[in-house]
Amino acid sequence: KPGCVLSCVLRQVRERLKTDVEQMKLQDPNFTPGLVVLQVRAGLEEAGGALAKSLKAVCLSLCPQVLHSITEVNENSSVHGLIVQLPLDSIHKIDTEKVTNAVAPEKDVDGWVLTSVNAGKLSRGDLGDCFIPCTPNGCMELIRQTGKSSPPPPPHTHLSHLNHQPGKWNISYTKLNLQKPVPRFVPSSPVVPFTNPPASRVCLTRAVFPAPNSDIVISRSCVPKPIDCLAREVGLLSDEVELYGKTKAKVQLSIIKRLQAQPDGKYVVVTGITPTPLGEGKSTTTIGLVQALGAQMKLNVFACVRQPSQGPTFGIKGGAAGGGYSQVIPMEEFNLHLTGDIHAITAANNLVAAAVDARMFHESTQSDKALYNRLVPLIGGERKFSPVQTNRLKKLGIEKTDPSTLTEEEITRFARLDMDPSSVTWQRVLDTNDRFLRKITIGQSPTEKGHTREAQFDITVASEIMAVLALTSSLEDMRQRLARMVVATSRGGVPITTEDLGVSGALAVLMRDAIKPNLMQTLEGTPVFVHAGPFANIAHGNSSILADKIALKLVGPEGFVVTEAGFGADIGMEKFFNIKCRYSGLRPHVVVLVATVRALKMHGGGQTVTAGMPLPKEYIEENLELLEKGCSNMRKQIENAQHFGVPVVVAVNAFKTDTEAELDLVCRVAKAAGAFDAVHCSHWAEGGAGAVALGQAVKRASEAPSQFKFLYDLELPIADKIRIIAQKIYGADDIELLPEAQHKVELYTKQGFSKLPICMAKTHLSLSHEADKKGVPTGFVLPIRDIRASVGSGFLFPLVGTMPTIPGLPTRPCFYDIDLDPETEQVNGLF
Amino acid sequence: KPGCVLSCVLRQVRERLKTDVEQMKLQDPNFTPGLVVLQVRAGLEEAGGALAKSLKAVCLSLCPQVLHSITEVNENSSVHGLIVQLPLDSIHKIDTEKVTNAVAPEKDVDGWVLTSVNAGKLSRGDLGDCFIPCTPNGCMELIRQTGKSSPPPPPHTHLSHLNHQPGKWNISYTKLNLQKPVPRFVPSSPVVPFTNPPASRVCLTRAVFPAPNSDIVISRSCVPKPIDCLAREVGLLSDEVELYGKTKAKVQLSIIKRLQAQPDGKYVVVTGITPTPLGEGKSTTTIGLVQALGAQMKLNVFACVRQPSQGPTFGIKGGAAGGGYSQVIPMEEFNLHLTGDIHAITAANNLVAAAVDARMFHESTQSDKALYNRLVPLIGGERKFSPVQTNRLKKLGIEKTDPSTLTEEEITRFARLDMDPSSVTWQRVLDTNDRFLRKITIGQSPTEKGHTREAQFDITVASEIMAVLALTSSLEDMRQRLARMVVATSRGGVPITTEDLGVSGALAVLMRDAIKPNLMQTLEGTPVFVHAGPFANIAHGNSSILADKIALKLVGPEGFVVTEAGFGADIGMEKFFNIKCRYSGLRPHVVVLVATVRALKMHGGGQTVTAGMPLPKEYIEENLELLEKGCSNMRKQIENAQHFGVPVVVAVNAFKTDTEAELDLVCRVAKAAGAFDAVHCSHWAEGGAGAVALGQAVKRASEAPSQFKFLYDLELPIADKIRIIAQKIYGADDIELLPEAQHKVELYTKQGFSKLPICMAKTHLSLSHEADKKGVPTGFVLPIRDIRASVGSGFLFPLVGTMPTIPGLPTRPCFYDIDLDPETEQVNGLF
Repeated sequence: KPGCVLSCVLRQVRERLKTDVEQMKLQDPNFTPGLVVLQVRAGLEEAGGALAKSLKAVCLSLCPQVLHSITEVNENSSVHGLIVQLPLDSIHKIDTEKVTNAVAPEKDVDGWVLTSVNAGKLSRGDLGDCFIPCTPNGCMELIRQTGKSSPPPPPHTHLSHLNHQPGKWNISYTKLNLQKPVPRFVPSSPVVPFTNPPASRVCLTRAVFPAPNSDIVISRSCVPKPIDCLAREVGLLSDEVELYGKTKAKVQLSIIKRLQAQPDGKYVVVTGITPTPLGEGKSTTTIGLVQALGAQMKLNVFACVRQPSQGPTFGIKGGAAGGGYSQVIPMEEFNLHLTGDIHAITAANNLVAAAVDARMFHESTQSDKALYNRLVPLIGGERKFSPVQTNRLKKLGIEKTDPSTLTEEEITRFARLDMDPSSVTWQRVLDTNDRFLRKITIGQSPTEKGHTREAQFDITVASEIMAVLALTSSLEDMRQRLARMVVATSRGGVPITTEDLGVSGALAVLMRDAIKPNLMQTLEGTPVFVHAGPFANIAHGNSSILADKIALKLVGPEGFVVTEAGFGADIGMEKFFNIKCRYSGLRPHVVVLVATVRALKMHGGGQTVTAGMPLPKEYIEENLELLEKGCSNMRKQIENAQHFGVPVVVAVNAFKTDTEAELDLVCRVAKAAGAFDAVHCSHWAEGGAGAVALGQAVKRASEAPSQFKFLYDLELPIADKIRIIAQKIYGADDIELLPEAQHKVELYTKQGFSKLPICMAKTHLSLSHEADKKGVPTGFVLPIRDIRASVGSGFLFPLVGTMPTIPGLPTRPCFYDIDLDPETEQVNGLF
Repeated sequence: KPGCVLSCVLRQVRERLKTDVEQMKLQDPNFTPGLVVLQVRAGLEEAGGALAKSLKAVCLSLCPQVLHSITEVNENSSVHGLIVQLPLDSIHKIDTEKVTNAVAPEKDVDGWVLTSVNAGKLSRGDLGDCFIPCTPNGCMELIRQTGKSSPPPPPHTHLSHLNHQPGKWNISYTKLNLQKPVPRFVPSSPVVPFTNPPASRVCLTRAVFPAPNSDIVISRSCVPKPIDCLAREVGLLSDEVELYGKTKAKVQLSIIKRLQAQPDGKYVVVTGITPTPLGEGKSTTTIGLVQALGAQMKLNVFACVRQPSQGPTFGIKGGAAGGGYSQVIPMEEFNLHLTGDIHAITAANNLVAAAVDARMFHESTQSDKALYNRLVPLIGGERKFSPVQTNRLKKLGIEKTDPSTLTEEEITRFARLDMDPSSVTWQRVLDTNDRFLRKITIGQSPTEKGHTREAQFDITVASEIMAVLALTSSLEDMRQRLARMVVATSRGGVPITTEDLGVSGALAVLMRDAIKPNLMQTLEGTPVFVHAGPFANIAHGNSSILADKIALKLVGPEGFVVTEAGFGADIGMEKFFNIKCRYSGLRPHVVVLVATVRALKMHGGGQTVTAGMPLPKEYIEENLELLEKGCSNMRKQIENAQHFGVPVVVAVNAFKTDTEAELDLVCRVAKAAGAFDAVHCSHWAEGGAGAVALGQAVKRASEAPSQFKFLYDLELPIADKIRIIAQKIYGADDIELLPEAQHKVELYTKQGFSKLPICMAKTHLSLSHEADKKGVPTGFVLPIRDIRASVGSGFLFPLVGTMPTIPGLPTRPCFYDIDLDPETEQVNGLF
């Protein structure tokens, strides 16, 4: 029924406008809403789709403009009707009858809407919905298209609220109902718990203390705010948000354009000392810090964190949502599926892998001519190149558009990629801890006619596509990066890309939702972006540039964005600066370096620990000597941060067995080493309230002068760049390029990849390449076994030792404890 | 700020109530909304979470009850405040002051809300939002909890609208803007297009005509209704819907309970003649039929279809959303990711696979005692069995709860599953056409210490978990089915289940969102459930029972649910009746059998066709002789449907080259063979309008008497059940059990699986086991090569020949044409 469609669309339009006005009010109490004239074009009685496209909005704030706008509408022959929306408080200023009379008689006035938006507050009846769904190209574009559909507006009258800058958020915080002691699963004396690696990091040997077995209990004790409420609180418009259930949402990239004039907030990166199996609580500190800055200090603040891999969630205990009273909630949503980004990467990655082997197979069984005829098939009597094939022709220097004009030599060059099976670097992936896929032989079915080869599966977060997702800056940029990915080398030495395989467009299609950052919240109701989670060894281990950029706009110049870098400062932070910041152009204001008394003691020579066994006594009793010795590692990592010219705040994540003297010692050493400040914090047990001192230190540091600089120049030869990192960051005497690495230096230089930044694949457990060397190892030469290229994401990764790229399941994986309550639908046993 | 939290929650509450009232109005224009008294408990000023939990609602419809209810509230010491909501039109009936005065002075009246719901229609100002998000346990429960929180309501006054039965929907249809001819990519004379298999079916050899290369163009030409609007139109409450973006939503299973008293609608299954490479358009007919029943005939109607596998979408051309002007939209959302259900199955399936190999590995390297100590670890000084381990103990007949009391023999039995590697039937899966994974060797990394074995990947939709999803009836039932799945046999001959592996709870957790059906819409705006897509050979090839059940309640007794069965009537329909209906308890009213002139000609002896080549002339010119011969296949399939006692309507899906004489001949033969009716239809070119005759025939058939009966009794021996299907449905003389099959009959009978229904894994391209035997083959004996058990989903599947379980990519996969427009975010080239 047309009338029904009409009222449905009108409702959306009206609600949308209401929401926008409300949004502006929240950001600026002095904002005065204007008159809204909706132009309804022909086709209103048609289907909703055509209709939605034909709606335009004009937003004015002064009476003369109203009449002027209506005159415009009158003169526009494509406009067949109007809806006029007037704020209640302008009734006394505007003669509504005058407005009505101004409308040409042939135009149909489809309705009047009086909104009751008053100067200072919204009346109850209009405190509308949180979310108004709109058709992709319909109502959502309503306001935005105004600029196009009408003559350029006089400055400061038309559309003023579109360029409005977000100010202080009007956000409601969630009050924690702290329990002391924090609910714990492990009841008795301190033991080394079964490992809890933040899952995206997939390290096989680390055990974290304290065991946050209580995390899901705490997570569940707090009912999250509806995510669309939070979205509105932080200045997102309803058409920029795509809900995924009630606690997760994706944010559209269109917001970047809307807020482009908005100054960025302060940018803080959280890193740590060299990790130990005892854990330092870097994620927990990241969340604790934003809870402090937001819920306690009332600043606009966003956390930007990585999405964890699902594999380790079921393997060795580990959610990665923070812990205790500093968590992203609901933690089961955070740790499982989320909005499907990692699943999309699995699908995209494996499509490339299937395409590589299928192509080699088809090339091996067909003549050049047959291959060409199939690749450029006769359809309805003619052959045509698809756009992706045209790109390949360009790469080959063949400037032809008619498939029938290619010479035989050109046909061969075009149709035959001639990949060397032994050169294939593209691996299949799964988001599962499946150790039996570490090395496999594929193609053993008779249908593959004996074309077997050795291959491997990696865990999905190790896919280059994950690294691309984290480093991309737009849909267009992602499309290009995905097309540049090198999968193998031809027998003639030419790098073969996904574009050559014809699969790059399909990859972009598979990734088109994954590129949008995911909005969630902390226990205290502050916003979190969860987006991308690349490996921290063979990739750069940092969450996405897009999430950081959007968050920096949303918090505004007085606000903060806290992002976390994987592993210790020698790895995640170095890559954050040299790779992520290089691609994003963003400049960090503060480094937060997380340290714990226990981990430092281990660096000082404390015993190794075993999961399930009682902690050796040096970790639960005061031992200043051991601690002081171990502080060398922290000192070196502070120095590493200082190489980049950014102030460092040390966060000492306190445990209940730490003594005051120990905590003070760490702070003293940190300050002596040049840290801007060093503070204790207790956010695990107390939430944001336990990190206020840290928040204050970070705020002060952000106002301190800083002079950011990169560690190396991209123009340097590959080996020099590697040497600079090894010497300045790791403390190595030199590097040694083993033959395979030497070969790759030459190959990549020849192929034109030598200007890429360096992404070291080194153990995270030591500053050196030997995991058991704690503290600050010296007098070593860093061996570079091999170098690989991640051309799409845009870095070279030298391999120092072998990197496990898919974890395994232990004898008793933690899935033994995980179950669903069929009555309540509650997830139990997830930690 | 507490005030902000309060107003946020109040807003939600109010909007929620408004939506519900509106919902009831839509269903019954005579519904009179009552007075709503919200009881606000202590803790209102606390965090939103605690607050939401403390809200209760009472809904009354008569004045005396209002006062009575307020008295109740007064006497309830846990209630600290009230909000009273009065419909505007009751103001003259109710003395508002009297109501206010009735509230005890110590209670805080937090607000009055006057809703402007009038007797017959809603005033403009209150035509609110489409969707109100609520916290999982908060506002959503508002109305529902009333029964618990107040004394039992007097019948017909309290809560009347909760048990209200949906009547005729007030739904807006989308008007098609038909183009003639239908936009086509292939311009010239009829050719056999590159194959377009509805992707979930993954058949490698089929080419479909007509080539719906225009499908995405048509799909995009129509802007879908916001999915929450559609949800409301079909009687879903906002708290039963989880949005996934703006065009997809998941429906919570709680609706089954709410509508349990509602009578079911009519249940229609769409099947076809034996498929040919020319395609019959079964999905298109399913969608065309619901568009006719809904948008044209104004009946409540739901389509329930399978989710397609993503693999073939990028391989051989094929979306599975229907085609032409009969499609599910947006087709790119339908074909890619959807809401992640298939991805969840990939994750769950591969977790089991990883657990199988990891367990065999750990058992091979550890003593029984070591194994036991790891499986039941010492945590904080004590050992405890997890619930899943307790289940295994029960299965072993060990009635102990204290891990320290097990005897050595019991420890061995408990800890050692002793799976025979050669008996592992659980395969890994990927939703990718990766032919090189058909047969692989795994475990070749040195870390697996030589424990290599041969394995394979299947496509995800072939996973038993997909079959479970399609056949389950509740979360609890799914949990149990997932636990019953057999993965291997122990060396002692005992079937080993996922429960034995300890992984069953984790599987339920991974599948907890996937179990909720996905709501989408047709081009004409009628609702569609897209849920589950199991293989039609090694599984039952039908969409989910849950979607059908919910849809049958939503349409109500006068409405229709149209579901589609995979492949021809001998396969999909037979399984629909004997497996799906057996588990669901639902009884179908009508079978729609789809046939085309072209396909029947091929059954009559027409030439085989090759993709890309012109169609042989018998398919584009009148040839009544060939057609009449081929009608034998249709006659046999009609007979097959009649075995089950359900009336058959034949839908002849017309192409423009079909002549009237040909179409009439098919109808005549169909009716002579006992079809209730037989009609031409042209929904591909004309949408629902082209299937009105079919809709009318289906409606009449649904009113005809029917006596549904199963084909076989579950109590019969396995071989007898197989023989009945082979003889009655396929027309075989007999069956022959080859040695492996004979062995399995004995094994499964011993293991207690012989009472399961039978799911034949036979080629779909012939009634016999030989794909090239068209028409009605006779005089053959059906060879049963092997039998497998799908114990969790609940059937045995005899293998007749070899079934490809993962497709491959052709030389030019259709990903060559697929790309994303970075400006518009539009997907191009997807068909």
